[in-house]
Amino acid sequence: MYDGVIQDLIDELGRLPGIGPKSAQRIAFHLLDADPDDVRRLATVLTDVKAKVHFCAICCVVTTDTECRICSDPRRDTTVLCVVEESKDVVAIERTREFRGRYHVLGGAISPIEGVGPENLRIKELYARLNDPAITEVIIATDPNLEGEATATYLIRSLTTFGIKVSKLASGLPIGGDLEYADELTLGRAFEGRTSVVQASAPSSS
Amino acid sequence: MYDGVIQDLIDELGRLPGIGPKSAQRIAFHLLDADPDDVRRLATVLTDVKAKVHFCAICCVVTTDTECRICSDPRRDTTVLCVVEESKDVVAIERTREFRGRYHVLGGAISPIEGVGPENLRIKELYARLNDPAITEVIIATDPNLEGEATATYLIRSLTTFGIKVSKLASGLPIGGDLEYADELTLGRAFEGRTSVVQASAPSSS
Repeated sequence: MYDGVIQDLIDELGRLPGIGPKSAQRIAFHLLDADPDDVRRLATVLTDVKAKVHFCAICCVVTTDTECRICSDPRRDTTVLCVVEESKDVVAIERTREFRGRYHVLGGAISPIEGVGPENLRIKELYARLNDPAITEVIIATDPNLEGEATATYLIRSLTTFGIKVSKLASGLPIGGDLEYADELTLGRAFEGRTSVVQASAPSSS
Repeated sequence: MYDGVIQDLIDELGRLPGIGPKSAQRIAFHLLDADPDDVRRLATVLTDVKAKVHFCAICCVVTTDTECRICSDPRRDTTVLCVVEESKDVVAIERTREFRGRYHVLGGAISPIEGVGPENLRIKELYARLNDPAITEVIIATDPNLEGEATATYLIRSLTTFGIKVSKLASGLPIGGDLEYADELTLGRAFEGRTSVVQASAPSSS
């Protein structure tokens, strides 16, 4: 509909995830009106990102260095390893400031439908890291969905042979939500994983 | 949160209209995984668009030529001029295939809040075009909102001196919508602009 390069830009933007034709058009016209320096900066960073970004040699998170900031930080606890699916999961966990150990990024989850098996994930690399006797616990933090649970089950089964503690993030009611709006699966998990608050005692014979 | 250039990309993407931090992160990771050629194409088209796109010398629509496809098309009706705010309005009207005349793109609408007055729009250029005796009608097709209506009112008032027909797009109920869901302003306009379907006749004395 639009002249050559304008339509090209709308088409390229429309290929990005979550951007429909209307948004693509809106962004394209925003860029046409924008300061040329702003647009040049976006174009440059797009080129840079593909040239400079690769995976951390240790934990496989995306980084611009050989080893990521977390793996090269001597203050991090080297006895605990948190296994996640994607680099963005690392950032989400870091935001909680709850975890001071290191990570291992699998690069996805087991999904027979999408043809992703354990051999397509960085599981061999995980096994290799577990040869380090310093590691005493592996925390599995895959997504709480079908693929993530399948991956967790696979890992739990195969990690038993290593003789180290393996734990998994708790499932349950999200904080700040309403119980009545929780879906039945989540609510079921919350029951299943309920934590004991007061221990039952033998009835006193007073 | 992320390493240098990855965070830069997320920041640059987050500056685009309608893209929040979550979407920016999602797009950034999509691009990190994407084929390098796809990303290079996006970067190239961004650079190209600023270099090649400018305004049509006649109607001021964005184009890559000196004159746009519509202005240089000899089959278009040169007697009618449709005045719109933005280039995307031209594309929207072209999609209807209802209009065979030419356009004039104002480049915005009068908005005292944003400091846009008539002198900031391409209204002088419109007056210049109206010196062409071939033009017999100007159709005002500004947005049906506060700024668009203000612009329409201004144009209608100033165009009376040219002695040519001036019309304005109809306001009313959108086709395909439910009357009960129409907002009161739209419904009010639909009443105001109601079209006569059967003429009243003197009561027959049979």
